[in-house]
Amino acid sequence: MASTLNQKEMTSHQNLWDSLLPDFPKGSLSRYRKKASFNWKEMAVFIDGEDIIQLKNRIFSALENDPLFAHHPGEDLCREKYQELTFLRCKRLFEYEFLTQQEIIENPLRSFIMILCIGMYDWSPSLQLALHCVVFAGPVISASKRFAHIVKQIYSMEIFGCFALTELSHGTNTKGIRTTATFDPSTQEFVINTPDFEAAKFWVGNMGKHATHAVLYAQLYTPDGQCQGLHSFIVQIRDTKTLLPLPGVMVGDIGKKLGQNGLDNGFAMFHNVRIPKENILNIAGDVTAEGKYSSSVKDAKERFSATVGSLSTGRIMITGICMTNLKLALAIAIRFSAARHQFGPTEDEEIPVLEYQTQQWRLFPYLAAAYALDYFSKSLCGNFVEFFAGVLTKQRSQRQVDLGREIHALSAASKPLASWTAQQAAQECREACGGHGYLAMNRLGEIRNDNDPNCTYEGDNNVLLQQTSNYLMSWMNCIRDKAPFESPLGTINFLQDYHHILGWKFTAISVEDCMDSSVPLAAYKWLVCYLLRESALKMNKEKQAGRSDFEAKNNCQVYYCRSLAIAFIEQTVLQRYHDYTHDTSVPVALQPVLRSLSALYGLWSLSKHLAVLYQGGYASGEQPGRFIQNAILELCYRLKDDAVALVDVFAPPDFILNSPIGKASGELYKNMWGEILQGNKALNRPSWWAEFCINKPVIGRLRSRL
Amino acid sequence: MASTLNQKEMTSHQNLWDSLLPDFPKGSLSRYRKKASFNWKEMAVFIDGEDIIQLKNRIFSALENDPLFAHHPGEDLCREKYQELTFLRCKRLFEYEFLTQQEIIENPLRSFIMILCIGMYDWSPSLQLALHCVVFAGPVISASKRFAHIVKQIYSMEIFGCFALTELSHGTNTKGIRTTATFDPSTQEFVINTPDFEAAKFWVGNMGKHATHAVLYAQLYTPDGQCQGLHSFIVQIRDTKTLLPLPGVMVGDIGKKLGQNGLDNGFAMFHNVRIPKENILNIAGDVTAEGKYSSSVKDAKERFSATVGSLSTGRIMITGICMTNLKLALAIAIRFSAARHQFGPTEDEEIPVLEYQTQQWRLFPYLAAAYALDYFSKSLCGNFVEFFAGVLTKQRSQRQVDLGREIHALSAASKPLASWTAQQAAQECREACGGHGYLAMNRLGEIRNDNDPNCTYEGDNNVLLQQTSNYLMSWMNCIRDKAPFESPLGTINFLQDYHHILGWKFTAISVEDCMDSSVPLAAYKWLVCYLLRESALKMNKEKQAGRSDFEAKNNCQVYYCRSLAIAFIEQTVLQRYHDYTHDTSVPVALQPVLRSLSALYGLWSLSKHLAVLYQGGYASGEQPGRFIQNAILELCYRLKDDAVALVDVFAPPDFILNSPIGKASGELYKNMWGEILQGNKALNRPSWWAEFCINKPVIGRLRSRL
Repeated sequence: MASTLNQKEMTSHQNLWDSLLPDFPKGSLSRYRKKASFNWKEMAVFIDGEDIIQLKNRIFSALENDPLFAHHPGEDLCREKYQELTFLRCKRLFEYEFLTQQEIIENPLRSFIMILCIGMYDWSPSLQLALHCVVFAGPVISASKRFAHIVKQIYSMEIFGCFALTELSHGTNTKGIRTTATFDPSTQEFVINTPDFEAAKFWVGNMGKHATHAVLYAQLYTPDGQCQGLHSFIVQIRDTKTLLPLPGVMVGDIGKKLGQNGLDNGFAMFHNVRIPKENILNIAGDVTAEGKYSSSVKDAKERFSATVGSLSTGRIMITGICMTNLKLALAIAIRFSAARHQFGPTEDEEIPVLEYQTQQWRLFPYLAAAYALDYFSKSLCGNFVEFFAGVLTKQRSQRQVDLGREIHALSAASKPLASWTAQQAAQECREACGGHGYLAMNRLGEIRNDNDPNCTYEGDNNVLLQQTSNYLMSWMNCIRDKAPFESPLGTINFLQDYHHILGWKFTAISVEDCMDSSVPLAAYKWLVCYLLRESALKMNKEKQAGRSDFEAKNNCQVYYCRSLAIAFIEQTVLQRYHDYTHDTSVPVALQPVLRSLSALYGLWSLSKHLAVLYQGGYASGEQPGRFIQNAILELCYRLKDDAVALVDVFAPPDFILNSPIGKASGELYKNMWGEILQGNKALNRPSWWAEFCINKPVIGRLRSRL
Repeated sequence: MASTLNQKEMTSHQNLWDSLLPDFPKGSLSRYRKKASFNWKEMAVFIDGEDIIQLKNRIFSALENDPLFAHHPGEDLCREKYQELTFLRCKRLFEYEFLTQQEIIENPLRSFIMILCIGMYDWSPSLQLALHCVVFAGPVISASKRFAHIVKQIYSMEIFGCFALTELSHGTNTKGIRTTATFDPSTQEFVINTPDFEAAKFWVGNMGKHATHAVLYAQLYTPDGQCQGLHSFIVQIRDTKTLLPLPGVMVGDIGKKLGQNGLDNGFAMFHNVRIPKENILNIAGDVTAEGKYSSSVKDAKERFSATVGSLSTGRIMITGICMTNLKLALAIAIRFSAARHQFGPTEDEEIPVLEYQTQQWRLFPYLAAAYALDYFSKSLCGNFVEFFAGVLTKQRSQRQVDLGREIHALSAASKPLASWTAQQAAQECREACGGHGYLAMNRLGEIRNDNDPNCTYEGDNNVLLQQTSNYLMSWMNCIRDKAPFESPLGTINFLQDYHHILGWKFTAISVEDCMDSSVPLAAYKWLVCYLLRESALKMNKEKQAGRSDFEAKNNCQVYYCRSLAIAFIEQTVLQRYHDYTHDTSVPVALQPVLRSLSALYGLWSLSKHLAVLYQGGYASGEQPGRFIQNAILELCYRLKDDAVALVDVFAPPDFILNSPIGKASGELYKNMWGEILQGNKALNRPSWWAEFCINKPVIGRLRSRL
C-alpha cells in the first residue's frame, strides 16, 4: 500500500534510517545528493530491510576495526604473502562467526549476503571460506549422516576442504574425467589413481597450498572391471598436523592467475592412494562389501532433480557475486564522474563529466542493470531456498522435480547474463574513469580481473546457455499440441500464448509511450516466442539435412538457441523487476526512480535485439528504433541527478570500497594524492640509478651479433 | 598480375620462403596445417615482404639469444625489479641498434615494425624506448636546429626523456592545463610553476623513476601578465649524474597500474624552476628578449595542419600496437582451440573445440579484423610518411593542409576502432580458452591489461571519435550545395554521391550473393550517408530548440555522431581491404582465403549496425538479416581449416609469444605442465603452515566484539 505517511510516522522512519545508515561527508558530491528525487536511506531500507543492513554494518565495521584487514597503500605484496594473508583473514572470519547456524537457518539469505559483504572487501578470503564451508561441505552434508564427524571438523577448521572435479584436460565436459577409484574388496578400500598428468586434478580452489581434504570426483570401477561412472569421494591429501602431502599424493599450486591471487588454486595427482570404503559420498550410488554396485536413487528424474539442484547453488551464488562487482565498479565510476570536471560551455567553466550524454549512456544502463539483476539474484536465491528445503525433506512431488528443472534453467542463464554484464561494465567503468581508472589503487582493474572467472567456472557461459535453450525447446511439443502447461515459478507460462504473441506488433506511438517497462516487456515476449520458433525450425532443417543430434544442436547455437536463452533470461529478469517496481507496496517517493530504472534496463537490453525485432516483423519503419533510442537517452537524462544517490544506496563504506576516486566525499584528487605519496618509495631514487648514470650503453655494440 | 607460375619459379619461391621462415614442429596442430588451403609462408612473404621478415627475424632471435631477455617461469617479480629489468632491456636495445638512422630514412615503416616486434615480447621496454626516441625526441627535432646537441644526447642515452602534458585534474581537456611558464627578461629565463597539486604533471611515462628531461607543456605568461596559451619547453628534472631530482622539482612514481608495470609513470610538481629562454620549443610561438610574444607560424590553417599532423603519430602507432595485441591473443586462442578437445559426437570421441560453430563465431571475425585492420594500419602509416615528408620540407600547399586534416580524421577513429577491437578480442580469447586462459602464464591477461590504456591515452576513444564526425559533418555544406569536392586520400569522395546513395537498397537475393565484401561495402556507404544525414538533422533540431553549440554537439553524440564516426572508419578499413584483396597482384593461391577474410570482416562489422539498416529502410523483411547472419556462419565454417595457418602467418616465435597453450607445437598440456612445475615453490609446503596446523582459531571468539 503506497499510502502517504503522517508526520509522526515520517519522523520515526527517519530516525530508524539515520540509526542504520550514517550521513555522507559534505563535499563535491553534495550538489548531486541534494538534487536527488528520493532519500537514499529510505531506498536502502526498502531494498534490504533492517536486519540485512545491520548484518552488513556488523561485518563492515568488524573488518574496518581489525588491523589484520588494514589496507597498506602502495604495498606490492608478492603472491606468497598474499596467500598467507588470505588464509589468516579467512581464519579470522571463523573467529568472528558473523552468523551462527541458527541465524542461517532462520534466514538462509543471510549467509549469501555475508559472503558478498566479505567479497566487497576482497574476494580471496570470501571465496576461500565459501569453497570450504559451502562447496566442500555441501556434498558432505548432503551425502549421509555418517559424515557428521567430518562436518564438525569442517566448522572447527580442524580440516580444510576443496572441491576437486576438473582436470588439466577436462573442464566443461565433466563426463570425460579420467581419475579412477577402484574398489578393492580385500581391504574394503577404494584405490585412487591418476592415469597421467593430463588427468591431474586442476584449478581446484584451496588445493594449491593448504587444503587437507578433497571432495574428489573419479570414475568408479567395481572389481568386475566395470566402470560405474562419475562418483565423489572424500580423500585426504595433506597431513593435518604438518600440511605435508600424504604418500602417493603430488599436490601443488598452479601459479599466478589474472585475479583472485589470494586464493591458492591447485593441482593433484594420485598414485595408488587408498581410502576407506565409507569415504564414498553415496549420493548417486554405493558399493557393497563384496563390490557390487548399487544406486540408492532409483528414479532417474528424482536423481536428476537432486543433481541439478545442487549445481544451481554455485550459479546462483555467482550471479550474486557478479552483481556485487557491478555495484562496486559503478559506485567508483559514478562518483568519479560526478566529481571530475572536464570541458564546459565556456573556456573558464568546466562541468562534471556526468553531465555529458555519452557518459550517462555509458554508465546508467549498467546502473539500471545492477538494480534489476540484483533484485533477480535475491529472488532466485529465495526460489532456491524453497527448492532446497524440499531436497532436505526428501520431497518427491512432481512440483519439486519441475522446480529443480526450472531453477536449473534460470541459473544456467542468469550466471552468463550477470557475469558478462559485470565484466563489460567493469571495463566500461575503467574507461569512463580515463587514466585514473587504469591506476591499480582505484580498484577497477581488480574488480574486472576478479570478476572474469565468473564467466568460466561453474560452467562456461556459452555452454551453460544451452541448458536454458534446451529447457525452452522442451516445451515446443506442448506448444504445438496446444496442450496446457505451466512451471512452478511461472517463468514459461506466457509461452501458452505463443501463437497469439507471435502476431503482436510494436505499437507505441511516441517516446513518452516507451518510458515504462511494459513496452520492452511486450517486445521481449514476442522475441522469445520468435526465437523459439526460429530455433525449432532451424533444428528441424538441420536434422532433415541428415545431421546427427550432436551436429544439429551445435549448428543451431549462434543467432538461434544462444540468442533465445539470452532473450529469455533478460525477459524473466525484466518481468520480475517490472512487477516489483509496479507493486503498490513500493513507497510513493521511490516509485518514479525505480520505474525509470526498470524501463531503462528493459529498453537498453532490448535495443541489442532491435535488428531481430525488425527482421521478424515485430517492428517496421523508422519510428520503433528511434523511440527506443530516444527513450533510453531521455531516461539517462532523468536519472542524472539521482545517479549518485542510487550508488550511495549500495556502495559499501569507503574502507571496504577502497578506491580513492570512489570515496563518498568525492574529493578524488586529495584522496589519490594522499595515497600516492604513501606509495612504496614513490619519491625515492631507483636502486638501479647507476645503470643509467654510470654504466652507459655503447650504441650499436651488439649490432654485429645480429 | 595473378599469373600462375612455372615449376622453376615455384621452386625458387619455395626456397626463399623456407630460408626466411622455419617449419613448425609436428604435433597436434599438424592436422589443421595440412588441411589449409594456402601456404602460410607464401602469405607471410606476400604481406610483409622479405625485408620486413628479415628485420623481424633479426629482432626476435636477438631477444631469444640474450639472457637479459630470458623468461623465468613462475617468477613473481615485484614492481621495482620489473622496472629495473625494463630499463636494462631498454638500454640493451640501444646496444643492438636494430636500425640505423639511414635504414629508418630509407623505409620509415621499419621503425614502426621494430617497436611492434619488441612489444610482442613485452610492451614495457618497447614503449619506454618509443616514449624516449619518438614521443620525447619528436617535438625536439621538429622545433629547431638549435636543439641538435640535445638530439645527440637522446640517441646516446646521455639523457632520458619524457613527454609531460597531462595533469592530475586535466587529461582530455588539454586546454585546461594549469602549469605556468613565466618569462623573466631580467635573467632571460622561464620560471616554471605548478599552482597546486591538482595541476601536478601526472601519468607521464618514464617520469616516475628515471627521466632526466621532459618536454613540458605549460601556459606561457609574458611579463605584461598576458597568458599566451599552451607551449612546450625542455625542462631538466633530474641530475644526469645522480638521477636525483633537481632543486624545486618534486618528482615520483604514480604507483601500480593495471598493466605495463615495467614502465615508470610519474608525477611532478615545479616550484620556481628556472630554465634558459632557448628551452622553449618554438613550434607555435616564441618570446623576444624583451618578453614580447611572437608566433612564428602566422597562418592558422598551416599551424593547425602542423599540430594535428604530429598528433596523428601517436594514434597511428597505437593502431599498430592494438593490432599486435590482437594478433598475439588470436594466435594463443586459435592454437588452443585447435588442440583442445572437449565433447564429441560419441562418448569416446572428443573433437577440437575449433570444430564448434560457437567457437568459430567467437574467434574468426576477430581473425578477419586482424587481417583487415593490420593492413589499414600499415597503409595509414604510409599515408602519414607522405604527410610528414611534407611537414619536414615545409610544404605549404592546400593538399598538404587537406592531407593533414584527413589523416587526423582517420587516425582519430582508427585508434578507437583498433583499441576496442583488440580489447574485446582479448577478453573473448581469454574466455574462449576457459580456465587455462585465466592462468597468467598463458599471457592473455597481460595482453588485455597492456592493451587497455590504448583506449584512453592519446585521447579518450569516445572524445576522439568527435574529431572524425566533425570532419565528416564539415562536408555537409558541399553536399547540400552539390558542389564538387574530394580529399587527398579519397576517403570521403563517395559522399559526392550522397543523394544517390541514400536511395540504395539491400539487393542480395541469396546467402551466396553476400559472400563478397562488396555487399557489406555498399551497405556501409549507405549507412555513412544515412548517419550523416540523421546527425545533421539532429544537430539542427538541437540548435533550433535554442541549445548552444556546446550543448547541441553533446546531445548529438549517442546514436548519431558517434555511430557515424565508427561506421565511417569501418567503411574505410573495409574499402581498403576490399581493394587490396581484389587486386590482381594477389597470388592466385591466396585470393580465396583473403577474400573470405574481407567478406567476414565486412559482414560481421556491419551486423552490429543491422538495426539501423532496417530503421533507415535500406533493408526490410526477414531475408537481409538472415542472409548476413548465414553468410557470417558460412564464412566461419570455410575458414575453419585455414585458421591455424592464418595465425601461423603472424604469430611470433614461441619464445616471443611466451604462452604454453599458444606454442606452435600445440602440445598444450605438456607445455603447461612443464611450466607449472618450474613455478616458484609450486610443490612446497607454505611458509605459514603452522598458522593452520598449530594456531587453531577459537570459533566465535571475536563475536562479542561485533
